[in-house]
Amino acid sequence: MEFTVKQIAALLGGTVDGNDSLKINQLSKIEEGQEGSISFLANQKYEHFLYTTAASAVIVNKSFQPRQPVKATLIFVDNSYSAFTQLLEQVNGLRPVEKVGVEHPSYIAESTQVGDGIYRGAFSYIGEECRIGHNVKIYPQAYIGNKVTIGDHTVIHTGARILDNTVIGNHCVIKPNAVIGSEGFGFAPERDGTYRAIPQLGNVIIEDHVSIGANTTIDCATVGSTIIRQGVKLDNLIQVAHNVEIGKNTVMAAQSGIAGSAKLGENCVVGGQAGITGHIYLARGTKVGAQSGVMKKVKKEGISLSGSPAFDLQESLRSQVVYQRLPDVEKRIEELENKLKNQ
Amino acid sequence: MEFTVKQIAALLGGTVDGNDSLKINQLSKIEEGQEGSISFLANQKYEHFLYTTAASAVIVNKSFQPRQPVKATLIFVDNSYSAFTQLLEQVNGLRPVEKVGVEHPSYIAESTQVGDGIYRGAFSYIGEECRIGHNVKIYPQAYIGNKVTIGDHTVIHTGARILDNTVIGNHCVIKPNAVIGSEGFGFAPERDGTYRAIPQLGNVIIEDHVSIGANTTIDCATVGSTIIRQGVKLDNLIQVAHNVEIGKNTVMAAQSGIAGSAKLGENCVVGGQAGITGHIYLARGTKVGAQSGVMKKVKKEGISLSGSPAFDLQESLRSQVVYQRLPDVEKRIEELENKLKNQ
Amino acid sequence: MEFTVKQIAALLGGTVDGNDSLKINQLSKIEEGQEGSISFLANQKYEHFLYTTAASAVIVNKSFQPRQPVKATLIFVDNSYSAFTQLLEQVNGLRPVEKVGVEHPSYIAESTQVGDGIYRGAFSYIGEECRIGHNVKIYPQAYIGNKVTIGDHTVIHTGARILDNTVIGNHCVIKPNAVIGSEGFGFAPERDGTYRAIPQLGNVIIEDHVSIGANTTIDCATVGSTIIRQGVKLDNLIQVAHNVEIGKNTVMAAQSGIAGSAKLGENCVVGGQAGITGHIYLARGTKVGAQSGVMKKVKKEGISLSGSPAFDLQESLRSQVVYQRLPDVEKRIEELENKLKNQ
Repeated sequence: MEFTVKQIAALLGGTVDGNDSLKINQLSKIEEGQEGSISFLANQKYEHFLYTTAASAVIVNKSFQPRQPVKATLIFVDNSYSAFTQLLEQVNGLRPVEKVGVEHPSYIAESTQVGDGIYRGAFSYIGEECRIGHNVKIYPQAYIGNKVTIGDHTVIHTGARILDNTVIGNHCVIKPNAVIGSEGFGFAPERDGTYRAIPQLGNVIIEDHVSIGANTTIDCATVGSTIIRQGVKLDNLIQVAHNVEIGKNTVMAAQSGIAGSAKLGENCVVGGQAGITGHIYLARGTKVGAQSGVMKKVKKEGISLSGSPAFDLQESLRSQVVYQRLPDVEKRIEELENKLKNQ
Repeated sequence: MEFTVKQIAALLGGTVDGNDSLKINQLSKIEEGQEGSISFLANQKYEHFLYTTAASAVIVNKSFQPRQPVKATLIFVDNSYSAFTQLLEQVNGLRPVEKVGVEHPSYIAESTQVGDGIYRGAFSYIGEECRIGHNVKIYPQAYIGNKVTIGDHTVIHTGARILDNTVIGNHCVIKPNAVIGSEGFGFAPERDGTYRAIPQLGNVIIEDHVSIGANTTIDCATVGSTIIRQGVKLDNLIQVAHNVEIGKNTVMAAQSGIAGSAKLGENCVVGGQAGITGHIYLARGTKVGAQSGVMKKVKKEGISLSGSPAFDLQESLRSQVVYQRLPDVEKRIEELENKLKNQ
Repeated sequence: MEFTVKQIAALLGGTVDGNDSLKINQLSKIEEGQEGSISFLANQKYEHFLYTTAASAVIVNKSFQPRQPVKATLIFVDNSYSAFTQLLEQVNGLRPVEKVGVEHPSYIAESTQVGDGIYRGAFSYIGEECRIGHNVKIYPQAYIGNKVTIGDHTVIHTGARILDNTVIGNHCVIKPNAVIGSEGFGFAPERDGTYRAIPQLGNVIIEDHVSIGANTTIDCATVGSTIIRQGVKLDNLIQVAHNVEIGKNTVMAAQSGIAGSAKLGENCVVGGQAGITGHIYLARGTKVGAQSGVMKKVKKEGISLSGSPAFDLQESLRSQVVYQRLPDVEKRIEELENKLKNQ
């Protein structure tokens, strides 16, 4: 890519302060700016970099007023963060067209139907009686089992494993080495101390516009379906157990997990390394802090939780503060006891 | 499948209350019952669904007495949960026979011996001098290194990686993308701040009837063996470090981890996201709560632990309760201090 | 291997107490010693095994004085742990030379350059315009995307996924099923509650002598690079988010994670299952305890932290102790309150 600052400002509907004929050939973070790069400033925390950055241009909010001289040319826009995202999308659109066609060797069962515009990478495997939509990309070494349905424009990355009977919607992304539809963890204890495997006959249903992170695992249901609703975004290394249901547009950060049969409402946000116990329900808009452990159902919408076990965020923050001075708390009690003894 | 309620009751040794000629063609959860489905009620928490379910039939405990009218036909049995499991097994037995034979291309070294009734999927790899038993299934894109031993009736799912010298018993299941026998995490600090890799010359031994979850990792020993005893069940995304030993019939939930050289006794239960530190021993029957961190050895059998660091479950629950009102605790101390000042 | 105790002592520069003509054919842990095995004693905790071990020989520190009779022959050295490591390296060197050459079928794009002495396993995939150094080993079913650079003597294990534009240095080890350079988890919330994917145009840079554990994930940067500096050692199942930078010789234990744009200094040590929040900086030599959650930047070097949220280790240990007796703390307050009431 190579654009002038003027061209970029026009694209973003922004106004320029400085030299608008400078040439831009890359995007950069503000602290890593170089001649020819354009960056952005949204988070106040990074403002001091603006006065030292070597970037040729920086996108800032209309409301922003520099408090020191700035060497870089500025582009003022309504929202610098989303303007930069727009620029990222523009540059992304310039990247070479993604792969189409079939690489060899790759495996596909005869009973499987495939749409137009597909990419099937080398060493990819597609089992019996699958229905694969149009413009689907199945990267090298990915695995699709039997009776799997995949919608249009969905991408199955290298090493992802889509087990039997899984249904995946349109415009989904399944990242490398994710495992979808593996057997749920169901074992019935026997009298002699051993465990008997409970057959897992259900499946996984993933609706449209869902993103599943690398090495994330989503188990199939015992009966019925584990369901990931439209627009859900899951980060890497997440565990979703059998018969879980995740509501529309819910977002979960890396290494979090949900135990069997729990249900999350729409637009929940789950922090990294958080856990949600089985058979509970979290209402729409529940927010779970990083490393928290939710042990009880949440009926009211929009609640923020923190702690392990998790409770109300604001109360949790107050308990955290006192926790850090517990030795002092105990000392104060001792002093009180001594005083009373001496009375 | 299609059965009458009468046929199912006969299979389960139950008695029918309602229309026993209804046709059943699927299993369902009670809250997702439909015409033609059979469900079960075991957990009281779900009783209210019984009075509204659209399922044609529901399996309940002999001792159960409905408190409202029920539309569904009921089948009374000794234990509704295990009866339903029996039904799951029955339906599972009706599924098409699993694959046998060799798909091409697949790779097997000449020096390796393979038993009868094997399935080797496309793009699977088996290295030198392995001994693979009878009726073993090695799914597409699975990897078996050199000098690996695998017992009869064991399943190695797609993308699982079984590294050199691993020994796996009979009737085991290794789920997709699990990694068994990768090098342990052993590094010796050098004087200049760098680390030197300590060669990991041991292996992993997995006994019979073990189940290993998707994306779980079990490292080989430095010397000797990392050992997973008979009947152990490991969920997804678990870490088992070098030289760990997990006792017979121990069960671990997803995202839990065990550090190097720790030993767990028989029939332990480890909750999700829990951690066990290195070089300690947990006695038979130890129960570790979700997200707990066990830092000390547990000598007494059958102890339940919770918290990070973990201590006795009952005490931990009491501390949790007080923790949540710590700001109040501190306020009470302040009040006491003020009172005493004013005396 | 087969050596005499005398030969081993000569190799290690040690002195022998006992029969130096005994034959040694394997290494063992001291608690698993057998006739013909050699072991070592470094950790006092294991001293009692010395008096019962069946090992033929045991390496001990010069300063060590047995308190009971020892059956095994002893080899006294300066540092028994590093002497045993030296022995492990010696034995490791005796193992058959690792693979070289190309197995078929495997896939490599014509535009890619490969050095001498390479191993490319069956079903491995190498995309367009890569540069692969000398003596690189790419195990079966590994994936290398487009425009990837890999330095000399680096090992890419089976099932590892190296996505587009990644740069890996010399002498690195990428363990099975690790995913390097997958898209970062960046989504911008829209007004209608959905999320829009932010293109992730950056890459991952891994410097020399880095080890990446099995099933670990390292995401590419939004712009610029996620950077893993020289000598870093990452264990299994770790999450490294987009735009993170990990300083030279930092070590992280299994299942830990770092959120987006966080930076760790040199020689940090992060415990298992610990988490580090986004956009913060940890100074050189910071030590983070297992299961801790670091929420704030750490400016001072060499600080040890513990807890979730994490604070100073020593203070944290004191708070932990009081936490475990919180019910008692509350009771003491009640008693004080009662006493004051009765005055």
